Amino acid sequence: MRSCLSRLVLAVALLPSFVLAATGHAGDVDPRIGTGGDGHTFPGATVPFGMIQLSPDTAMPDFKHAYKWAAGYQYGDDSIMGFSHTHFSGSGHSDLGDVLVMPIAGEVKLEPGDPAHPGSGYRSRFDHASEVEQAGYYAVTLADYGIRAELTAGRRVGWHRYTFPTGKSAHLLLDLRPSIYDYPGKVLWSKLQVAGDGTVTGCRTTRGWAPGRKLCFAMRFNQPIASRTLYDRENDVVYKGFKGPGNQPVDHDAQNGRALVGVFDFGTLAKPLEVKVAISPVSAANAVANLDADGKGWDFDARRAQARAAWDKALAVIDVDASATVRRQFYTALYHAMLSPTLSMDVNRQYRGPDHAVHQANGFEFYSTWSLWDVYRAQQPLMVLLNPERSTDFIRSLVAAREASPFGILPVWAYQGLETWCMIGYHAVPVIADAYVKGVRGFDAGKALDAMVASATYAPYGDLADYMKLGYVPIDKEPEGASKTLEYAYDDWSLAQMAKAMGRKDVAATFEKRAGNWKNAWDPKTGFMRARLSDGPFRTPFDPAAAGYGTDYTEGNAYQYSWYVPQDVPGLIRAMGGDAKFVQRLDDVFDAKIDPAHFKHVEDITGLIGWYAHGNEPSHHIAYLYDYAGAPWKTQRRLKQIMDSQYAARPDGLSGNDDLGQMSAWYVFTALGFYPVTPASDVYAIGRPFVGRATLHLTNGKNFTVSAAPLDDAHPYVGEVTLNGKPLAKPFLHHAQILAGGELHFRMQANPAR
Amino acid sequence: MRSCLSRLVLAVALLPSFVLAATGHAGDVDPRIGTGGDGHTFPGATVPFGMIQLSPDTAMPDFKHAYKWAAGYQYGDDSIMGFSHTHFSGSGHSDLGDVLVMPIAGEVKLEPGDPAHPGSGYRSRFDHASEVEQAGYYAVTLADYGIRAELTAGRRVGWHRYTFPTGKSAHLLLDLRPSIYDYPGKVLWSKLQVAGDGTVTGCRTTRGWAPGRKLCFAMRFNQPIASRTLYDRENDVVYKGFKGPGNQPVDHDAQNGRALVGVFDFGTLAKPLEVKVAISPVSAANAVANLDADGKGWDFDARRAQARAAWDKALAVIDVDASATVRRQFYTALYHAMLSPTLSMDVNRQYRGPDHAVHQANGFEFYSTWSLWDVYRAQQPLMVLLNPERSTDFIRSLVAAREASPFGILPVWAYQGLETWCMIGYHAVPVIADAYVKGVRGFDAGKALDAMVASATYAPYGDLADYMKLGYVPIDKEPEGASKTLEYAYDDWSLAQMAKAMGRKDVAATFEKRAGNWKNAWDPKTGFMRARLSDGPFRTPFDPAAAGYGTDYTEGNAYQYSWYVPQDVPGLIRAMGGDAKFVQRLDDVFDAKIDPAHFKHVEDITGLIGWYAHGNEPSHHIAYLYDYAGAPWKTQRRLKQIMDSQYAARPDGLSGNDDLGQMSAWYVFTALGFYPVTPASDVYAIGRPFVGRATLHLTNGKNFTVSAAPLDDAHPYVGEVTLNGKPLAKPFLHHAQILAGGELHFRMQANPAR
Repeated sequence: MRSCLSRLVLAVALLPSFVLAATGHAGDVDPRIGTGGDGHTFPGATVPFGMIQLSPDTAMPDFKHAYKWAAGYQYGDDSIMGFSHTHFSGSGHSDLGDVLVMPIAGEVKLEPGDPAHPGSGYRSRFDHASEVEQAGYYAVTLADYGIRAELTAGRRVGWHRYTFPTGKSAHLLLDLRPSIYDYPGKVLWSKLQVAGDGTVTGCRTTRGWAPGRKLCFAMRFNQPIASRTLYDRENDVVYKGFKGPGNQPVDHDAQNGRALVGVFDFGTLAKPLEVKVAISPVSAANAVANLDADGKGWDFDARRAQARAAWDKALAVIDVDASATVRRQFYTALYHAMLSPTLSMDVNRQYRGPDHAVHQANGFEFYSTWSLWDVYRAQQPLMVLLNPERSTDFIRSLVAAREASPFGILPVWAYQGLETWCMIGYHAVPVIADAYVKGVRGFDAGKALDAMVASATYAPYGDLADYMKLGYVPIDKEPEGASKTLEYAYDDWSLAQMAKAMGRKDVAATFEKRAGNWKNAWDPKTGFMRARLSDGPFRTPFDPAAAGYGTDYTEGNAYQYSWYVPQDVPGLIRAMGGDAKFVQRLDDVFDAKIDPAHFKHVEDITGLIGWYAHGNEPSHHIAYLYDYAGAPWKTQRRLKQIMDSQYAARPDGLSGNDDLGQMSAWYVFTALGFYPVTPASDVYAIGRPFVGRATLHLTNGKNFTVSAAPLDDAHPYVGEVTLNGKPLAKPFLHHAQILAGGELHFRMQANPAR
Repeated sequence: MRSCLSRLVLAVALLPSFVLAATGHAGDVDPRIGTGGDGHTFPGATVPFGMIQLSPDTAMPDFKHAYKWAAGYQYGDDSIMGFSHTHFSGSGHSDLGDVLVMPIAGEVKLEPGDPAHPGSGYRSRFDHASEVEQAGYYAVTLADYGIRAELTAGRRVGWHRYTFPTGKSAHLLLDLRPSIYDYPGKVLWSKLQVAGDGTVTGCRTTRGWAPGRKLCFAMRFNQPIASRTLYDRENDVVYKGFKGPGNQPVDHDAQNGRALVGVFDFGTLAKPLEVKVAISPVSAANAVANLDADGKGWDFDARRAQARAAWDKALAVIDVDASATVRRQFYTALYHAMLSPTLSMDVNRQYRGPDHAVHQANGFEFYSTWSLWDVYRAQQPLMVLLNPERSTDFIRSLVAAREASPFGILPVWAYQGLETWCMIGYHAVPVIADAYVKGVRGFDAGKALDAMVASATYAPYGDLADYMKLGYVPIDKEPEGASKTLEYAYDDWSLAQMAKAMGRKDVAATFEKRAGNWKNAWDPKTGFMRARLSDGPFRTPFDPAAAGYGTDYTEGNAYQYSWYVPQDVPGLIRAMGGDAKFVQRLDDVFDAKIDPAHFKHVEDITGLIGWYAHGNEPSHHIAYLYDYAGAPWKTQRRLKQIMDSQYAARPDGLSGNDDLGQMSAWYVFTALGFYPVTPASDVYAIGRPFVGRATLHLTNGKNFTVSAAPLDDAHPYVGEVTLNGKPLAKPFLHHAQILAGGELHFRMQANPAR
């Protein structure tokens, strides 16, 4: 347990989930995990890779204070401002929280109010004891109103059921003003309209993380609207358009402006109010089409069962034999690893691209929400292993996004089709290469390779111009030159692997050469990866402990980034002076005594074990590196240390941002006993399992089982690993060996097998 | 000449236009007329009913000071800030000025600068002597740069030719910030993008007169762009979206924001820079498609000739024999009457509707820019007379707009498909009825009638709820109740005429009854039309001179509005006590001695002759009313008085806003000797011609000639009117008589034929 986790331990014992009759693994999912502390996950309802993430929001504060509420919900809060339909799972930077609705019983207030002053607005207090969080279902009692709120989700439709207290007037408030990472002026324009049949539609355009993002919706109720008012709450504006001599329609069926609120009144209700909401990044008409196609009828319970079945089906890909707590951790991690990318295509196959234009997805489903700097490491490789058909759509989506890119390059950090330019590298390249190298073929490899080369050679991006000229990114030209040089070199290597597999020797040779550029960042004198100046020398002064903006590194320091040569670990070992020195330096990283306040200026660096920061991605492969230097027992020891301290079946059970499933995918792989240290190679480094038995049901019809015995705290080390009964000489496993099916057995023992 | 006109007389003698070889009537058009004073016309290039109005802008001031610059140009100004692609012709309220470009030689400044301080920005001084204004062509020398700027237009494409001084670097600045009726925050969002082939595209969304209006464009140059920079000039914003660790592309191919400026550099040029720009209210992709389809090749002179030919063709509908000055006035008026509605449909037939959604025009062309309170009076009836095929498209556009209306009603004041709710009444109804009654049949009359009834019965609009209940619009519920009661009653009557002609007796009866509602506004005690309170009595205190907001009237007072019963002039005469008293009261209106400052708080009431205000529409039929009371010679006298004082072949030659051609259409009809006092009847009131001979070439193949002799100031009265040689007993003419062809001859004489 990292030091700061202990500060965040919450006094709430998690209640057992209410389990439906179904017996699949969805029952082991606990969406509370990560909703406290720095996990930034959301507790609400969604389906695998679904467009809708319908979840309660406890706050959407000013963007300067918003890091903690990146998912709109923090477990420590005691009031809910509403339920919105879009959320990132575990992001650092953020946005979304679109189409916020709040049921209200009795008097209607139009502002959310101050959490510190209950009753000051429409938000309501709640008690965790009233919450039910399940895969595909969320419920809570809104204490201030006595309303039972239930949420479930389809792929494009969010379903709500609100049970009002008897005799109180029922209202639904729709607030188009707030969003996650909020600030004045974020809403550029919004529209709200009520059609004759009671369908409410609208759109809003915001200048958030992806500037100029338009999100539309269509909403229907299961009971007639008795009355309703569409408010424009913006009062301090010079000119709202023509306000003539009173001849405008008085009873507005439509509003447009920058601060719209709709209040829908239903009188006193004899049965629960059900609401269904479809969204579209394209248009209100598309949202209506999505609602028509995917949101037929009114049967909340059936929809809830469908969502649960979707999760049961998705999670059935791995059967795990472990304690209830470990199962909860494992399946919640697998669940979190299946939340991105998200479907970003309407039923008519239209999607919005990074050029903000509307495109058509022919022959594939378009997905977006690409936190590529994170997910290329383990989350996407996990999808390649478990569901290569889905990966095919992911890769076709990446290539389609590139075709619609004004720059002609692959996504960097994209959502709802739009680009944010967040983080560094061109890590869509290893995502594609990893799939190809592991046999995924359902996409046009030639077009994909073109897109990868275009991304790796687009001079204006992250100073690729100088990188291509000098072999490194000069720190006097471009920030964080060391990290960029290292990550570009790895991306280049991954590109070369795919080119080689395709027989494209020219491309392979070019990028194989660039893959060696990590050496330009290596400073043998200090023994660290560093950034150079344009004219050659490393920048001085140099402090290996320094991290953050202005340094040589991206969300990291020299202790963390100097291990980033996944494409050539033997080369890195040689550079560091051989196995022994390499192992010693790894130990020094983990064993360092660090002031916990050292990284307080870099929000994302959390989960510290010495310098090792499990809460952020640059560290994720480091514990496995002992394997490469002949000390796999040290990998095993470090993994146990990390699993024990960085993950827990509690709301604050993730030591850092889940980062769209990367933290969770690390858990899944590590629990299974192997990890893709080098995506785009077919090799996994073997660690040690944390489950007694796990069977992967592969899409080729084969089963691959991992087993470990005896598996307990008294036997933390691996004595021998056998694949189908034959001992493995080295702690590495090939993808093809998994695909062939069979059993990987770990004989566990008390002492390290040095 | 009205009193305030004399104050506005400009010291500039108009130069003869530079006439091309063509000999059509386009050569008589002088687009300068109305660009000074209150005319609010624009001098730039356009084609009949074209989507593009490419015209110089001298100022786009704050909306509080913008009335004078409603067309972006005022003849009294001495500098030009650029050339933009959309303008209203003669509106009071305003908007547009989209896609402003400015050629720059030498140093580039990014702000337009202060006209009072030449050189303080990119704007340039100019001299009227360097201007050439013709139908479809405009040229000026930008003195500060020595650039000769020439503009011409197609239906969807604006064409520019800029001849730069030798040796100076050539630049084109594109400013997406300013617009007509400007104010901080008007631009909600805008985008700018440069494609690989040099095509520049963009869109901007503004909260102007039609809130949330999106206008896109596509622009190409005839020479390669040497370099370019896309600026986002907004600096005082909390958050512009993620600005990460410097990894964003440095050389932007795209920008989005609220203050975008693009500067395109061409080095020193060997030949003139040509620019072509297409626009679209739908999307940038549609703008590109418009440019591809309608903007092929590079031949500015050919495009100029095409525009001229389009005007020659449109104006050939009437051949007029008159002095050069009168011809200039006449054909300029006819030109101004052919500028609205404007094409608002892309080449793929897509258009934006009042629901802000995109629709498809099948089988017709969609037009918008509907200043209906103005143009139903004479401009649209003139189109029905001269070009009923075009009227068919206009009417289909109105009905299509109704089908896309969130309220299910016809347009009120719409442009680019969007509704502004400006002014009063439902005057799309008489526009449609007038066409139908006069034989236009190319539209679905049943659907049109449904739309008309829907508009006339939509309770929330302008308190139609009370109007339908009480027979009048009560002033305690709705402002300007007298004007609204009167105009609704006329609109109702027009609806009844169409229903009757269709054999829809039920509808006809209902609205024939409502047509009598004008009587509810008539106060026999004071002898004025007044507004009543909900419970019956007229509101007191009452001041017949009072005009403007808060009074009983819309842009008028009791002296002006009490004549508004075009559907029942005999009834009005009876109410006023018979012919003699009616004529006396008309005389009292024209002969009243009024303090010119009386209406200074109501911008639109201009062009005073006594209480008669020719500068605004409620007066437009009044001079013809003498005809109905047996005093046609007084109509003749008043018409001469108006024609002499309210129109002149000078920049300040329109005594009020041209109002999308209504002022000009009044001139055309009056010059021809007759006027549609009651649109939706087939009757014209006969005045007296102001041209010696005019032949209308009707689309049914017939010619109808008006002649007058002797026509001079010594013979201002009509002795006898003959139609095909037979004297007319009464001063009225039927539409069918015109359509039958023939000659209407006026024998003029020195003295009135009392």
